Amino acid sequence: MTVTESRPESSSEPPAARPRYRFVGTRPVRHDGLDKVTGRARFAADCDLPGQLAGCVVRSPHAHARIISIDTGEAEAMPGVKAVISGGDFPAVAPGDPNYDMGVNLMARDRVLYEGHAVAAVAALTTDQARAAAAAVRVEYEPLPPVLTIDAALDPAVGAIHAHMFTSGADPAPTEPSNVSQLTNFARGDTEAGFAAADVVIEREFTTQPVHQGYIEPHAVTADASQDGKATVWCSSQGHFNVRAQTAAMLGWETARIKVVPAEIGGGFGGKTTIYLEPLAVLLSAKAGRPVKMVMTRSEVFRATGPAPGSKFRVKLGARSDGTLTAGKAQMAYSSGVFPSYAAFLGAWTVFESYDIADFEVEARNVVLNTPRSAAYRAPSAPMSALATETVVDELAQALGIDPIEMRLRNAVSEGAINTLGAPFPRVGFTECLEAIRDHPHYGAPLGPNQGRGVAAGHWFNIGESSSATVNLNEDGTATVVTGSPDIGGSRASMALMAAEELGIDVYDITPVVGDTESVGFTDITEGSRATFATGMAVVEACRRVVADLRGRAAKMMGVDVSEVDWADGSAVHAGGEHDPLPLAAITAEAKKTGGPITVTGSLDAKGVGPSFAVHLCDVEVDPETGVVQVVRYTAAQDAGTAIHPSYVEGQIQGGAAQGIGWALNEEYIYDGDGVMENPGFLDYRVPVASDLPMIDAVIVEVPNPNHPYGVRGVGETSIIPPLAAVANAVAAATGRRIRDLPMSPVRVLDAIVNSGSDSTDSSSSNG
Amino acid sequence: MTVTESRPESSSEPPAARPRYRFVGTRPVRHDGLDKVTGRARFAADCDLPGQLAGCVVRSPHAHARIISIDTGEAEAMPGVKAVISGGDFPAVAPGDPNYDMGVNLMARDRVLYEGHAVAAVAALTTDQARAAAAAVRVEYEPLPPVLTIDAALDPAVGAIHAHMFTSGADPAPTEPSNVSQLTNFARGDTEAGFAAADVVIEREFTTQPVHQGYIEPHAVTADASQDGKATVWCSSQGHFNVRAQTAAMLGWETARIKVVPAEIGGGFGGKTTIYLEPLAVLLSAKAGRPVKMVMTRSEVFRATGPAPGSKFRVKLGARSDGTLTAGKAQMAYSSGVFPSYAAFLGAWTVFESYDIADFEVEARNVVLNTPRSAAYRAPSAPMSALATETVVDELAQALGIDPIEMRLRNAVSEGAINTLGAPFPRVGFTECLEAIRDHPHYGAPLGPNQGRGVAAGHWFNIGESSSATVNLNEDGTATVVTGSPDIGGSRASMALMAAEELGIDVYDITPVVGDTESVGFTDITEGSRATFATGMAVVEACRRVVADLRGRAAKMMGVDVSEVDWADGSAVHAGGEHDPLPLAAITAEAKKTGGPITVTGSLDAKGVGPSFAVHLCDVEVDPETGVVQVVRYTAAQDAGTAIHPSYVEGQIQGGAAQGIGWALNEEYIYDGDGVMENPGFLDYRVPVASDLPMIDAVIVEVPNPNHPYGVRGVGETSIIPPLAAVANAVAAATGRRIRDLPMSPVRVLDAIVNSGSDSTDSSSSNG
Repeated sequence: MTVTESRPESSSEPPAARPRYRFVGTRPVRHDGLDKVTGRARFAADCDLPGQLAGCVVRSPHAHARIISIDTGEAEAMPGVKAVISGGDFPAVAPGDPNYDMGVNLMARDRVLYEGHAVAAVAALTTDQARAAAAAVRVEYEPLPPVLTIDAALDPAVGAIHAHMFTSGADPAPTEPSNVSQLTNFARGDTEAGFAAADVVIEREFTTQPVHQGYIEPHAVTADASQDGKATVWCSSQGHFNVRAQTAAMLGWETARIKVVPAEIGGGFGGKTTIYLEPLAVLLSAKAGRPVKMVMTRSEVFRATGPAPGSKFRVKLGARSDGTLTAGKAQMAYSSGVFPSYAAFLGAWTVFESYDIADFEVEARNVVLNTPRSAAYRAPSAPMSALATETVVDELAQALGIDPIEMRLRNAVSEGAINTLGAPFPRVGFTECLEAIRDHPHYGAPLGPNQGRGVAAGHWFNIGESSSATVNLNEDGTATVVTGSPDIGGSRASMALMAAEELGIDVYDITPVVGDTESVGFTDITEGSRATFATGMAVVEACRRVVADLRGRAAKMMGVDVSEVDWADGSAVHAGGEHDPLPLAAITAEAKKTGGPITVTGSLDAKGVGPSFAVHLCDVEVDPETGVVQVVRYTAAQDAGTAIHPSYVEGQIQGGAAQGIGWALNEEYIYDGDGVMENPGFLDYRVPVASDLPMIDAVIVEVPNPNHPYGVRGVGETSIIPPLAAVANAVAAATGRRIRDLPMSPVRVLDAIVNSGSDSTDSSSSNG
Repeated sequence: MTVTESRPESSSEPPAARPRYRFVGTRPVRHDGLDKVTGRARFAADCDLPGQLAGCVVRSPHAHARIISIDTGEAEAMPGVKAVISGGDFPAVAPGDPNYDMGVNLMARDRVLYEGHAVAAVAALTTDQARAAAAAVRVEYEPLPPVLTIDAALDPAVGAIHAHMFTSGADPAPTEPSNVSQLTNFARGDTEAGFAAADVVIEREFTTQPVHQGYIEPHAVTADASQDGKATVWCSSQGHFNVRAQTAAMLGWETARIKVVPAEIGGGFGGKTTIYLEPLAVLLSAKAGRPVKMVMTRSEVFRATGPAPGSKFRVKLGARSDGTLTAGKAQMAYSSGVFPSYAAFLGAWTVFESYDIADFEVEARNVVLNTPRSAAYRAPSAPMSALATETVVDELAQALGIDPIEMRLRNAVSEGAINTLGAPFPRVGFTECLEAIRDHPHYGAPLGPNQGRGVAAGHWFNIGESSSATVNLNEDGTATVVTGSPDIGGSRASMALMAAEELGIDVYDITPVVGDTESVGFTDITEGSRATFATGMAVVEACRRVVADLRGRAAKMMGVDVSEVDWADGSAVHAGGEHDPLPLAAITAEAKKTGGPITVTGSLDAKGVGPSFAVHLCDVEVDPETGVVQVVRYTAAQDAGTAIHPSYVEGQIQGGAAQGIGWALNEEYIYDGDGVMENPGFLDYRVPVASDLPMIDAVIVEVPNPNHPYGVRGVGETSIIPPLAAVANAVAAATGRRIRDLPMSPVRVLDAIVNSGSDSTDSSSSNG
């Protein structure tokens, strides 16, 4: 079921309750679409400047080692080499500095901390020369023992990677350094009493491995540093203002010395919210006096940019025989690679967030390892926490003989429920999503042999943050809408649709533009599903100011008071009706006479985010001879609040589901005993391709966010959360075996089938 | 005398009357300076796109001919050729259409109208291939008699070039087509009575030839048309919004389908206020499906872009013995090339504008010829009209035995004087400029043998028009100021200085940016000396809104009412003094908490232009054996209102004077009898180079324009007006010969010396 051109009704809300829009909810071809399908759009690696050099990074072969010496003499003498840099060329950073982690991650100083860690970089006339020179940089290492697993990191006997790191959030404050960077605790009520009140209690243990965002476009940058101490940086990212600020901080420069021009982005999914190459390229350019372009190989992307964390959890839930969840307990650990992250905090927040559980306690630890620093990946931490909760809920439903949707409906949070952080939920659409799946033809469809069906839910809180927009009216009555949010998932179209709705002119009369850091107001990263929500609010704010301006101009042209002029359907309308309506283009044509060009800005720190829920339904077929799991049907319902451009909402739902399926079935970082990644390429690191998946049926549920002018909730992240559990529940249904260690690769599934699984770490009890 | 770092006082105004500024009036290195001196700045021809083709224009060898046929078959079949276009590929234009003149000028239709007129254009893989293909386009012509001189154009017996052109402004309306495109009449009082009241009446005839703006950078463009019907155009121009609008109109496209990215501009002087290549490049790109780059040769620049008009005048002035001018009469003709222009109107307006003459009549004709369409050139039409008036005034002073400065002081317009158009002058600084020259050491300095000294004045009205500015504050307390005015003469620095003054932060903490047509509000052409005046007003307006915003944020942070918060010296200051001042950077650092990013726009149609006057003093030495005139000393005083960046005001004064000297002495279009230009290159068309000129002493007079927040008057044009007459008066003083036909080239000067000149067309009479 997909949304049709005329916009379907969600089952949960009568049509009359939702305003009718002229443009919002339609499906125009995206403004940047033709450029992208014809190859004219310029991605990060498409920028070439006259006199440009090629840059190459020297990377560590060791997961953990002391750097004894770096000899760049031979490299510097090689043909075509114009600049060589290493850690000493960057501002010194001391442990505890706010820039320490990022600074050391960009370029190793006294130690290398993971295999692939940057040690030096070279710029030369050609890529071949740069690679040859990089290979000629002599680095002497003293290998150190690497910490490679969550268990090792949690073992107090294992030495701390960072002598200056003490567990934050621990009480009492620790006196010894630790590989546990952070501890989060949430609790409510009396958990023991809650479990005692349960009729069934199930406790299970789960592990997941780091997985990569797998964006098609590798990191790439071209930097041009001028002798006046300024630099222009062309790159793709999820937030070029952030690239500017971080690059400046890493170089010890003032922010305004850097201009970042956003290239089109070939996927980010959270992985392009941070920087890797930009300061290196700027420094090489400044040293060489010429522009420098750097493009990562796929191997570098895997080995030196941030995957999602791995995890190890123990989760326990109790329920009464009627399905009511009474208590929950989670002990969680996330591995965030070599530096601390918020992973454990986000996991602890989200693990029980979907359900109204009276008594719970959550303890989550973040650990550091000698692996690449983790980065955000679509709804960070939540897919792993949902894997645990949603499979245990599935088992509880099974144990109690309750339909899994019914089980969730009985416990689903709704408006007013108190969330994990202690705040009440605003209006949310979880129940509506559950009902959409329950009522979907897929839910009751027959299954074939070796097939099983699983359901799972997911929740993401979404974020607001700062956004700016500039709206300029052209003399011909068209408009340009400039924002600072890179267009990752169709946000140009969303901005144009909202602007068209506000101004009352055709969506194709709006030119949506992503401005560089010098041409639009500060805008935070496109993350947390915030672009259409928050930047959209800035666009709406700016458009409403435009309309106020237009009404004033029209009043002047009509010779009436502005209070007598309304704005309707793209025209200024005189309330008294004595004057003909003035279309927008008639006002802009006379703008010179009524005060000059019409140009306004809107900017805000967006409040009122709408939490988003999704419910996924997955059918798998498991080959009992090979253990291969094939997803044969998949339906994903998600509450979009209001779908500004339904096609791109569907795209987000489908993309999130596809990535979640890959995470469930195949993707994982594989390290050898020395911490060297064994599968840094798409041949060995297996992401789902089109032929692996059925068409994912995206069902848009619309429960408008009351705090957004068009009811938008962020949609980009939620649908990566349910698939891990939905697939696991489906595999369990197909095989009778619960697999709780991801990925559910053929060898592991076959092992579960052949060896009847092994639930040694899990427990299930009946109080009744 | 140049203005010093600490800003001099103008003689006319006590220092106390002018506010002291912290930044305005200082001389920071321009923000774009280093890029320009190191070659990093990207001018029009510096844009290269992947897959780009080279374009070449096929041009007419005839000054006037009917096009019988155009055969592009051979050219299309040549190696590397990807597209060929000719007039038929453009929208049809009918005589009388508003787009007719420009459309036909861009690409000939049924006739070629001047030598060099574009007939077809070719795009191929390489420039050589494109040129070869252009040469292979077969055009069959039927030559027609060309109209080549003003006298011929005024001769009713000569056939009209345009059968649809009737003299506008003529009364009664003409019934026959004519080569006189337009007639302007101004009159006041009783001219005959005025002349009767004069003690001396002098009447003279003058001719000048077309001269080119001579910008260093030839016209160049790169266009990239996409299959979605949009195009991006990179070019240098004086106004990229105008390039957008004109290119769209020429293609019959909607404006919003085109994005124009402004390159740095290597000189324009009025000549880049219109378009020549842009629609050709877009059309070739659309046809070829690839980007197309076109760069004119210097010969093409001369033969096919607009020079300033030639002129032929008869001017008569009468004065009483005390020097009071009693009456003036001017009969003027301007040749505007093949299409009508405003040249005659502007000449008629400016010819007597500097002096308070009770009775005058002016009749000015604009004629068309089979020569390139003229374009604006710095104070269009005024240098020729000043040549006439200022030499006749000089002769009157001589005849009456009055010092030439004193003569002008007695007649100079001042506040309240009624101008030619019938409006009162606002406060102007003509008297102050005259006094500045009178009091300058140069004025009384001794002269050597064969040397002479001349003085002349000039007036330019300046214009306002529409401008927009966006000001974005960065999180670190720096600011970006985006405007739509190409930076021709240092306007980035001017904008930054005014913004620094308003915001109270250092001028180098401002990044001034010239935005493309999609990133800043509509802005008119940089012409009429309007950028620092009008765009500066938009910047000031935007900055004042920023300060209002900052005060509000500071009040929020202090917890006080905004009415208690002032803005002083870059900080929010609590009137009560109970809170420490909050510097701008402290407010931007907290912007997220106080409402989001700070970003505003300002836009206006600027009113209150300040007319500008200049008085120049020129010493020449004439070689009596060769007729070579050497300018040996030159002082130029000009009223800048307030000099925002004095160095760039001086640069404008010096540049204008240098161009005027070239016009006076050497520059002219030379045609053979068939209308073929004989000197289309800098070897034969002689512009002054550095070694030809003394350092021009620029004296900035500051009589602030009361209608501008910083008192700015436009400064870019006025100083090209006086040199023609100043040099002529100096040559007369040195040789005793009045030369009234420009240029005063060696052969002409020698002829005047040897043959005692010939004043056959002139008359001088004494009524006394």
